[in-house]
Amino acid sequence: MISTNTDTRGGPRELPDKPPISIAPDGTVHPVPTAADARASFGEIALKAAEHSRRGGQVVLVQGLGFVGAAVAATIADTKAPDGAPLYFVIGIDLQTPGSYWKVEKINAGLVPIDSTDPVLAGLTHHAVHETGNLRATTCEDAYGLADVIVVDVHLDVADRANGADAEIHVDLEPFRAAIRTIGRLMRPDALVVVETTVPPGTCEHVVLPVLREERARRGIDEPVLLAHAYERVMPGPNYVSSIRAYPRTYSGVDERSSSQARAFLSTFVDSPDGNLLWRLENPLSSELGKLLENSYRAANIAFIHEWTLLAEKIGVNLFEIIDSIRVRTGTHDNMRYPGFGVGGYCLTKDSLLAQWGVTHLLGSDALLENTLDALRTNALMPMHAVDLVKEVAPAGLGGARIAVCGVSYVPDVADTRNSPTEALVDALLAEGAELRVHDPSVRTWLERPDVPIVQDLEATLADADGIVLAVGHRVYREFEARSLTRLTPRPTFIVDAQNVLSDESARELHAAGWLVVGVGKGHWRRDGMHCPT
Amino acid sequence: MISTNTDTRGGPRELPDKPPISIAPDGTVHPVPTAADARASFGEIALKAAEHSRRGGQVVLVQGLGFVGAAVAATIADTKAPDGAPLYFVIGIDLQTPGSYWKVEKINAGLVPIDSTDPVLAGLTHHAVHETGNLRATTCEDAYGLADVIVVDVHLDVADRANGADAEIHVDLEPFRAAIRTIGRLMRPDALVVVETTVPPGTCEHVVLPVLREERARRGIDEPVLLAHAYERVMPGPNYVSSIRAYPRTYSGVDERSSSQARAFLSTFVDSPDGNLLWRLENPLSSELGKLLENSYRAANIAFIHEWTLLAEKIGVNLFEIIDSIRVRTGTHDNMRYPGFGVGGYCLTKDSLLAQWGVTHLLGSDALLENTLDALRTNALMPMHAVDLVKEVAPAGLGGARIAVCGVSYVPDVADTRNSPTEALVDALLAEGAELRVHDPSVRTWLERPDVPIVQDLEATLADADGIVLAVGHRVYREFEARSLTRLTPRPTFIVDAQNVLSDESARELHAAGWLVVGVGKGHWRRDGMHCPT
Repeated sequence: MISTNTDTRGGPRELPDKPPISIAPDGTVHPVPTAADARASFGEIALKAAEHSRRGGQVVLVQGLGFVGAAVAATIADTKAPDGAPLYFVIGIDLQTPGSYWKVEKINAGLVPIDSTDPVLAGLTHHAVHETGNLRATTCEDAYGLADVIVVDVHLDVADRANGADAEIHVDLEPFRAAIRTIGRLMRPDALVVVETTVPPGTCEHVVLPVLREERARRGIDEPVLLAHAYERVMPGPNYVSSIRAYPRTYSGVDERSSSQARAFLSTFVDSPDGNLLWRLENPLSSELGKLLENSYRAANIAFIHEWTLLAEKIGVNLFEIIDSIRVRTGTHDNMRYPGFGVGGYCLTKDSLLAQWGVTHLLGSDALLENTLDALRTNALMPMHAVDLVKEVAPAGLGGARIAVCGVSYVPDVADTRNSPTEALVDALLAEGAELRVHDPSVRTWLERPDVPIVQDLEATLADADGIVLAVGHRVYREFEARSLTRLTPRPTFIVDAQNVLSDESARELHAAGWLVVGVGKGHWRRDGMHCPT
Repeated sequence: MISTNTDTRGGPRELPDKPPISIAPDGTVHPVPTAADARASFGEIALKAAEHSRRGGQVVLVQGLGFVGAAVAATIADTKAPDGAPLYFVIGIDLQTPGSYWKVEKINAGLVPIDSTDPVLAGLTHHAVHETGNLRATTCEDAYGLADVIVVDVHLDVADRANGADAEIHVDLEPFRAAIRTIGRLMRPDALVVVETTVPPGTCEHVVLPVLREERARRGIDEPVLLAHAYERVMPGPNYVSSIRAYPRTYSGVDERSSSQARAFLSTFVDSPDGNLLWRLENPLSSELGKLLENSYRAANIAFIHEWTLLAEKIGVNLFEIIDSIRVRTGTHDNMRYPGFGVGGYCLTKDSLLAQWGVTHLLGSDALLENTLDALRTNALMPMHAVDLVKEVAPAGLGGARIAVCGVSYVPDVADTRNSPTEALVDALLAEGAELRVHDPSVRTWLERPDVPIVQDLEATLADADGIVLAVGHRVYREFEARSLTRLTPRPTFIVDAQNVLSDESARELHAAGWLVVGVGKGHWRRDGMHCPT
């Protein structure tokens, strides 16, 4: 039994029949092998890895094949020696469970196990599996003993993150700790462990290092552990691979030797011509904290604009054009955020909570990130402002109203639905008795909310709607013009633009056609009376 | 009596002898003329202005000769027609009061009335007064009637800004309103009024426009007022003039004609080769709010880092190196602020208060900028953290301790002391009974705190100090090395580095020499025990 757990989607499906099966998000069914079968099929991987080692190459094991691990494994596999041959033989490892096993089979079929729009990632994965043959996935724990470098990309989440900022923050470190224990139990004494997972501050020093030492001591290994933290900045979307290769990389080892080996490893696949993308910090604690501070800053900047959004709507100005005029100040103001619908994704909704949890529970400090956690609270409540706008313009209340919710993912034109702010909107509208049609052009199944069906057909979604909420700036929505909307929804209705999707011109035309139009941050629409009947 | 009031420094000095005198910050004494004398000496200016008009040129009046107006007047005077001749005849006007009159005499002597390190500003002022002869200053109200364009740069402040965020915000609009009334009473009907002053949202529409209309109606003028708001982004320091010319300029008129005339005027001195530096917004309210949002964002970003600073000190990491590693993410994180001592200056300490005041009192809205005002509170309290550090390392308490406070201005190597955070530190240390020596290399007199003498001699400041606070990153302090400090202060003492002035190497050397060393954001110094005796 492998102790990693990267399962963020789908979740184990307990079926009465044996053998257990693992169902991928695309619906394909993969019987989960027994440990004996997994070991048997691992033989071929072991042979190939050994052959690569004999030729002087290194074996890299990526632990956890989720959103980060799957992309990192393919990118590392694409790293080339000066003669053009693959520098590494890469083995991806994940859990032999119904929730995770399908990822292993996808990779071994040359497919990307995550829903990615990056053609480069698809190409790299296919090439590494089918052409160069230096990328394979397995669930067999024997793989740990082959690795020169073990990259940890396992899952580490905050439980009930939406409430974490309000009450006690809960982090269950056990699955992560177990994954590290597996490494310590099976790693080669001289292997380098690189933790890429975003972890609470203090994790490398107070969790990973003691666990590795304990397991190695049991095996009679007393040489120093080679361990570094090197956080990723992976960005889901069309530049997935580029976000691994071309983004600056912060790292730090637990000692000088770990740092220099981590640097040597990272420099082979981070495109850093003169080394300027690699940032070594004093210790892993600094690197762990850096990642959390970085995402907390982004979250705080998003939260900052929210009360100005409410203000702009009240005093009747267009906050978007004002922000545009301020963002021209490059270097100080060009990252100012626009009014919006909310914050989703895996990182910005939890990283400040991880920071506070680690400071309190791993480092035993009484330091409090009060304003930072306030910002997370603001962000979590942001979709409720869109709900308020819906309530305001729904002419007959929400009970029984047919509302088209346009957009479920948390990034435009990306299929990633993790912690989508649409979830809060949907819950609130359903609680008021609305009848929802939820549409997203790139999402087939809302994995986190399988109870909410996704309509693929935009025309069907809009045809008999009493109201429309534009929750994501997908291209297909941004192309809406008043004409297309009045064709799709012939009866005048209301529309809440939570993501700056509609042009002023379209808004005016819709209002002239009898629609009620409101928008987050669009104070000028309100000033001009577009939320009232013509 | 002119109703403008730009007097932020010095303040009127009521002396028993007549005539009243106006004393400049540099100590020069200027007898204030009577209104009759001012009018008499204005004759020559009027002749020159008329001559300039006859040749087809325009006359620009700059109302208020403070930090913005003096620099704007000189910059506009340097604007040239295609044939190289001055495009404008510029008249600066200020109050005929002891507090303001000296500025008029300084300009007429070809001198910059503000303490500026920008050699370009000094050159422009001298050139315009002594060579081209198209810049003059006066207190005579007759000047208003000569102007084609009136640029309003008068003072508009929040009373007791340090407390504004905690209690009710007080803004006395009367001096500003009176200045506008003077314009309405005397302006030419077709003159364009451009408000550059940072004003509460709603001021142009709810204050300036009604006052101008009222005064003009009294004079029987019924043609529409030409009025625009166009906020400045002047940055005190070595690039003063460049901050007027090369920064993007946001503006909006009260109507189409005002907007296009404002644009035409601004485009003559804002270097905007293809017009891309001029940003027109929908209405003056948007422009007024933009300036306040812009500075509120900066203030919030400064406040954001404070609780992370406290955290870093508690958990023992160097927040500066962490932030450096994050700031490499250009476009999203490169404006992250470093730990510091506090926020000073004229804008960041008040603009959020102006925003809230205008929203409440001019626009009658119940919108609240709670988090933004929280940020101002955090910034105002920031110097108290440095005080806490002083208390921690002062071996015998603060009563009677001789403490050298290094730095009074709010920007390194700039003489501007407006709302300096050093003021809060000085007050707190004095309240604890410390004996202070306050040093600043570029400040001779602390205009806002004439009760606190400034020592110019650094050696005398440090010679017998029991402790040192580095409050500003002036170059002369940044050049400190352990050697120079132990020479200047031979007895081991304590040093609080509130501005990232000392290198790690110097800090270590000082500690090895028996000093106690702490620094804001320098958790690693604390971790390494530098705050404790060796």
